[in-house]
Amino acid sequence: MSVSTVKSNKCFGGQLTKFSAKATSYNGLETKFNVFIPEGKGPFPVLYYLAGLTCDEDNGATKAGFQGPAAAHGIAVVYPDTSPRGAGIEGETAAWDFGVGAGFYIDATSPKYSAYYKGYTYLTQELPGLLRKTGLPLDLTRQSLMGHSMGGHGALMLYLKNTSTYYASCSAFSPIANPTRSPWGTKAFAGYLQGGVEEGKAWDSTELLKQAKGRELRIRMDWGGADDFFKAGQLLPENFLAVAKEIGAEDQVVATEREGYDHSYYFILTFAAEHVAFHAKYLNALAPGKPE
Amino acid sequence: MSVSTVKSNKCFGGQLTKFSAKATSYNGLETKFNVFIPEGKGPFPVLYYLAGLTCDEDNGATKAGFQGPAAAHGIAVVYPDTSPRGAGIEGETAAWDFGVGAGFYIDATSPKYSAYYKGYTYLTQELPGLLRKTGLPLDLTRQSLMGHSMGGHGALMLYLKNTSTYYASCSAFSPIANPTRSPWGTKAFAGYLQGGVEEGKAWDSTELLKQAKGRELRIRMDWGGADDFFKAGQLLPENFLAVAKEIGAEDQVVATEREGYDHSYYFILTFAAEHVAFHAKYLNALAPGKPE
Repeated sequence: MSVSTVKSNKCFGGQLTKFSAKATSYNGLETKFNVFIPEGKGPFPVLYYLAGLTCDEDNGATKAGFQGPAAAHGIAVVYPDTSPRGAGIEGETAAWDFGVGAGFYIDATSPKYSAYYKGYTYLTQELPGLLRKTGLPLDLTRQSLMGHSMGGHGALMLYLKNTSTYYASCSAFSPIANPTRSPWGTKAFAGYLQGGVEEGKAWDSTELLKQAKGRELRIRMDWGGADDFFKAGQLLPENFLAVAKEIGAEDQVVATEREGYDHSYYFILTFAAEHVAFHAKYLNALAPGKPE
Repeated sequence: MSVSTVKSNKCFGGQLTKFSAKATSYNGLETKFNVFIPEGKGPFPVLYYLAGLTCDEDNGATKAGFQGPAAAHGIAVVYPDTSPRGAGIEGETAAWDFGVGAGFYIDATSPKYSAYYKGYTYLTQELPGLLRKTGLPLDLTRQSLMGHSMGGHGALMLYLKNTSTYYASCSAFSPIANPTRSPWGTKAFAGYLQGGVEEGKAWDSTELLKQAKGRELRIRMDWGGADDFFKAGQLLPENFLAVAKEIGAEDQVVATEREGYDHSYYFILTFAAEHVAFHAKYLNALAPGKPE
């Protein structure tokens, strides 16, 4: 599959470029992603930002404030979309928390969605290949993950699931940290997965963390104390932290509730530089990969 | 007129609040504005950000990156809308560069628009009064201006026009610096002003600068070398700079063409911190005003 450039804007000395490609994981549908690369020669380590419900590849690039700190640390940022678009599955655009804009970064198994909704395969296998085809100076042997809300779930889940892809570190803003116990998560899993919420445990960060005992974890997590979704039990970081304690990993999960902050991009913006610095510490300590 | 709170988000330790009020300058129509105040007691000096064509009070607040540096310098940022909304004048929503979202921050004199389009009166007289009514700790004796594109024109024009309002400093991103000679500006002035483009000279920063000889100026201006609107002669900062030289004020206008940057918010984002620091130098050097 070929990758084409939609547009490109100079930003903080680097370049933010939007690409378009047909994605096999999305049954051949067109998908878009933004890539920021800093000024200089590279190759640059790659930090993914997974956005939340209703978002696409632009929300993080325009509103989250990652480019400035990424330029300072010499890190590339990749902003994928949150779901396939245009599948035409009946009802997929009816709700803001399910279907289009709400793929949950998992591979669907229910017959209705499984042909198109393969977000996990897209992110872990297909997107790195598309990134290679851009010709940008990216070092895909050094990758880390961050995300917000549904994307925080996505970042934690991808990091904790034993994939063939290595991620150096993971951070989440206001993540849906225990989706099998939250209204958003159970709705999504019931719809996308043939085995429903029970099958969803394989995509649930809090469940996955139980299996991570003994593994070195590099996780950072922040959420707002005034976040209405946190207060309504949609996020449940407390469940994730309880498991971290159970497996003796509480020192490897830096988790902070931020007083007065809500679920918006203004919260992300405030802590964007700290999250990028967290990842830079690990990404820039790794030896650069061989050019491909 | 009363001011009501639409919503409020914590950001960089401070608070960004959206307000709504009925504006006399807009013939009683509702208008909205965002105000960011840093953490702390204040009162804080006020830096206005005037947005460009098609924008409203949210573009700067969500995408420009001013809140972080404003918090660091202890400065409030006010984001007004770019025009009245809902006047219902025939044709006012037909074009993206005229009418709604494109008020040019001037007081219209043509009979068709003069009842509603009084952006200059709104910004210089009415908005400060509305800001007082918010009850926020703002020091309206210390004010500065910045803006982008049409808003860069607005910032320069308000700064240079001898108003009863004192502005400590002015900065512009990619301003329409000589609107009587640019397609956007001549279209706007021909439509809003009974005397057309000739009358528009009273609202043209390059024309106003001719009258500023001997005045101490504190102006900063940046534009992108790859800005298609700059290349098409919509901005004309070179005309503004030629007059600055004529009146011997070239040292008081810090103007820089930024290679490779375009007209987008990615450009603003890149230089946001430098612009806020420029204003902070002047605003924070002024003695705080008396509480009102």
